[in-house]
Amino acid sequence: MTDYLEILPLTREAFAPFGDIIEADPANMRLINGGTTERYHALAEPVVIGEPERLIFSIFRSKPRQFPYAVTMMERHPFASQSFSPMSGQPFLIAVSHDEDGRPGKPQVFLVQPHQGVNYFPKAWHHPLMAIGVVSDFLVVDRDNTSANYEEFFFETPYLIAEPSL
Amino acid sequence: MTDYLEILPLTREAFAPFGDIIEADPANMRLINGGTTERYHALAEPVVIGEPERLIFSIFRSKPRQFPYAVTMMERHPFASQSFSPMSGQPFLIAVSHDEDGRPGKPQVFLVQPHQGVNYFPKAWHHPLMAIGVVSDFLVVDRDNTSANYEEFFFETPYLIAEPSL
Repeated sequence: MTDYLEILPLTREAFAPFGDIIEADPANMRLINGGTTERYHALAEPVVIGEPERLIFSIFRSKPRQFPYAVTMMERHPFASQSFSPMSGQPFLIAVSHDEDGRPGKPQVFLVQPHQGVNYFPKAWHHPLMAIGVVSDFLVVDRDNTSANYEEFFFETPYLIAEPSL
Repeated sequence: MTDYLEILPLTREAFAPFGDIIEADPANMRLINGGTTERYHALAEPVVIGEPERLIFSIFRSKPRQFPYAVTMMERHPFASQSFSPMSGQPFLIAVSHDEDGRPGKPQVFLVQPHQGVNYFPKAWHHPLMAIGVVSDFLVVDRDNTSANYEEFFFETPYLIAEPSL
């Protein structure tokens, strides 16, 4: 029996164990550039553990997923954070799991709005992002990965995600 | 007599002295996530010179400029790069200058497309970004600045930018 996963809204509280949300939070606002710009300051930080510390900017161009979508695996990066910020004005789905003795637990699925980015902490289990409906671009800030910075785990029984209602 | 500055398209060649363009360059493409995603890899790098090395993610929410717009000043960050990537799907203007004995020379103005970001090198003179038409959000990756990482210069005679044709 395959479980359907509930799609949750992305809130700071729900996402806190897995990373930071990059969105314009009024608590972090300061006016700059002669009052023409609101700077929402220090919403998240890229993290690299150990050497080499090279961080890079990349763009991910993702094909939309077909629904129902089967979550067959999760991955994580033990030695660096990884951020995704939408550049196409499109919502997307993410899935994360708590760690259970070195394996990902049951995934939690979040609907990310176009004005939100996410920055996964090092070691946070996550599924590759899931674009919805159209090919979508994302700015990615992560480490120029070595193979040591990549782990993956395949579930015995996949989980399913139904088509999200936007 | 105030000069109007020409608005140029943003190309890698023209921008090379000032920073990197963050855009999906086919030369840097690799397929990942089971072929569902094109990764345009390592398009730019955040740079921090000296300690502390804390990089941060922020969002800038910028009011649109009124045109003709007067460029009265330029700024630079000696000890860190600074990147801007559009999150609102809107084009915007940037202005940069070569350094001339510690002062910015005549600005060069570029029209940046919604699929393009920029990462200024440390020490590159630039004007605060100029949103066009509507309030626009940008993801910013820079250093959590100290005052030492900020220089500004005011021109005796401002330069003008006419309303861009999009």
